[in-house]
Amino acid sequence: VRKPVQLVIGLALAGSVASVAWAQAVKPETAIKFRQGIMRAQLWNLGTMATMVKGAKPFDKDEFLRRATYLNELTVMAWEGYPPGSDQGAPNRAKPEIWKDPAKFTQLAEALQAATGKLAAAARTGTLDAVKGPFGDVAKACDNCHDDFRSK
Amino acid sequence: VRKPVQLVIGLALAGSVASVAWAQAVKPETAIKFRQGIMRAQLWNLGTMATMVKGAKPFDKDEFLRRATYLNELTVMAWEGYPPGSDQGAPNRAKPEIWKDPAKFTQLAEALQAATGKLAAAARTGTLDAVKGPFGDVAKACDNCHDDFRSK
Repeated sequence: VRKPVQLVIGLALAGSVASVAWAQAVKPETAIKFRQGIMRAQLWNLGTMATMVKGAKPFDKDEFLRRATYLNELTVMAWEGYPPGSDQGAPNRAKPEIWKDPAKFTQLAEALQAATGKLAAAARTGTLDAVKGPFGDVAKACDNCHDDFRSK
Repeated sequence: VRKPVQLVIGLALAGSVASVAWAQAVKPETAIKFRQGIMRAQLWNLGTMATMVKGAKPFDKDEFLRRATYLNELTVMAWEGYPPGSDQGAPNRAKPEIWKDPAKFTQLAEALQAATGKLAAAARTGTLDAVKGPFGDVAKACDNCHDDFRSK
């Protein structure tokens, strides 16, 4: 994105090429980059929580709660990043099975969402002991989906 | 990230190389990719809101509120993506001025945050007329910061 945001979203030039582009369906590339961006942000927060769970960084209950909340919010946002046809369009590792077996994908997506919700709830207790189990469950839920639906 | 999330965040191998890596300071590359990911997700939501503001897609008050809320949440998360030293480390367009004039950067960051908060509040009214102005203000706030702090 090399242009001003106002131009990209078509405010500066009503009826312009830019506004026509936005009126069309979302490009697969845009969805791919969106979902990859969300996963980057999820990992950013997971990484710092991991240092606290493992004792590599002192447990800070406020920071942990903030990151667990962010992670849960990001996970809510993530799923619209997989519209049909977005298996291709930019380099990405989503397997076609996501769109061939949507029930399974949805099941694993809901499992992650439930896990991030539980982690955020546990973080509200403010204790390291309370978050250790739920944090491990979140990491497992990430991997459960990647095992089936992400290329090696 | 080519490994299971549990391995990357060092849960699978306590005391392993992975866990040592996480205990160290965040790599500039990680921060750069995090903030770029957040901006991708911001633009994803801005884009759909723009189609509704411009009438290219019918105004859906529930979707608009959801996207305005997501945008505000993402904007809250964004600012930790600029630790000192993260002007380099991966391809990115952040200017060194971000770290040379942090007061100005913070001022523009707070202006965007205020604008996304006002947009989310306006979206709660459920009317297109109420969101048009606040939406334009958000787009301007994006560009105000990019003008000063993002390379062409």
